[in-house]
Amino acid sequence: MRVRGVVAYDGTEYSGFQRQANALTVQEALEAALAQITQETVTVLAAGRTDAGVHATGQVVAFDTAWQHGLDDLWRALNAVLPADIAFLQIEECAPDFHPRYHARSRHYRYTVYNAPVRWPLALRYSLHVAVPLDVAAMQQAAQSLLGEHDFAAFGQPPKRGRTTVRRILAAEWGQELPFGCAHGERAQGRPWLNFDVEADAFLYRMVRSIVGALLRVGRGKMTVEEFAAVLASCDRSQAGPTAPPHGLCLVEVKY
Amino acid sequence: MRVRGVVAYDGTEYSGFQRQANALTVQEALEAALAQITQETVTVLAAGRTDAGVHATGQVVAFDTAWQHGLDDLWRALNAVLPADIAFLQIEECAPDFHPRYHARSRHYRYTVYNAPVRWPLALRYSLHVAVPLDVAAMQQAAQSLLGEHDFAAFGQPPKRGRTTVRRILAAEWGQELPFGCAHGERAQGRPWLNFDVEADAFLYRMVRSIVGALLRVGRGKMTVEEFAAVLASCDRSQAGPTAPPHGLCLVEVKY
Repeated sequence: MRVRGVVAYDGTEYSGFQRQANALTVQEALEAALAQITQETVTVLAAGRTDAGVHATGQVVAFDTAWQHGLDDLWRALNAVLPADIAFLQIEECAPDFHPRYHARSRHYRYTVYNAPVRWPLALRYSLHVAVPLDVAAMQQAAQSLLGEHDFAAFGQPPKRGRTTVRRILAAEWGQELPFGCAHGERAQGRPWLNFDVEADAFLYRMVRSIVGALLRVGRGKMTVEEFAAVLASCDRSQAGPTAPPHGLCLVEVKY
Repeated sequence: MRVRGVVAYDGTEYSGFQRQANALTVQEALEAALAQITQETVTVLAAGRTDAGVHATGQVVAFDTAWQHGLDDLWRALNAVLPADIAFLQIEECAPDFHPRYHARSRHYRYTVYNAPVRWPLALRYSLHVAVPLDVAAMQQAAQSLLGEHDFAAFGQPPKRGRTTVRRILAAEWGQELPFGCAHGERAQGRPWLNFDVEADAFLYRMVRSIVGALLRVGRGKMTVEEFAAVLASCDRSQAGPTAPPHGLCLVEVKY
């Protein structure tokens, strides 16, 4: 049978999702756990190939297994042998032709920024600290130019050379959500948490981090809202500037 | 002059706050940063001697310095040389006789529990995962017996042998706050976050973790609310059972 699972991981210690030679990846850890429990050689398919250091709370995977002892037992056994920083949140049987990447309608990523003069030590692994004040209204306005179908060649590369760089962005919004351990930070440093939620049918390689990097330059007053729109329209990768670091990024949800 | 500071740290890598031979402590890291910036040998006083692995977002410290270049510069310089997992959230000049421990009116600690069948990988460092369902109403009811002035000998030891074990608890409450990266977890696993907020004039050594350990046994149905009250009344350290692990605990605020 084919099994579909929702996986969460802290990406800090991994060289991304996809299996590589000579580097620890999430895929390798999942396949090792499956091999240990099911005694089968299993290939794990996934919705998103998250980069090194990127986290996930809603990665969707699928694998085939001849497991006979019930999915609840498989779920518990897998979580017992997986490293603590990876977990199957749920598993269920799915159609034998279900493919988490090809069948996904959209992916939702979240990028978290801690915008205050001093870093917040309890959020270092999961957010980018930006010390200078950001103009959130300008970042929000610039983000609106991303909505809809565009050629995003300025913000990333296709998974395979020569393929299309056109993608459809369904939502792109800066919000403020209070994360873990913020009680004192609120009092001491205002409301420093910013999160950029972006949903698209699919993303180019490094596209979210490249967009966030450019939006943060808008927030710092280094680029106008109009210039951001012009970067998008240029379809020129060299215009967007440096990408934001991976540790602020999390794959939150995949829709089917 | 004497300087008062609010310090946040991720306690994972430290053997607690207080300086020890042959172990890395937060005090040592703060004093090393001060020595590097001010070229003085500085002793840092603190409100709470947090245990190994315990975090803080509102530790209060004080130190004396002859620094002449403005507190804003000192603040920035200290944060620049401190390890990333420790930060001065703020510093200000205070009365020359201010003592963060002796002058504190109360301390507020928070213990965070993630109560769901599967662990949440992005919260491992800052919460205790409890897989079996907890009876929060019973834990809340048991916590009420802690309020007011009691001999807490059942739940901890005094900082110095032979001193009083009487303390006054001002607040003790289980709440539900959504921490970092919870968007998907909420959907997948209900509302699994529990936090125990407890405020007292002062705490015995390991008192919060010992209380939380006993309250979690109430939540698991291993101890009744009445038995919890009887443990408190017994003043017998052997009645309380095992303490909860340190990584769920955080010193949130100290009041003066």
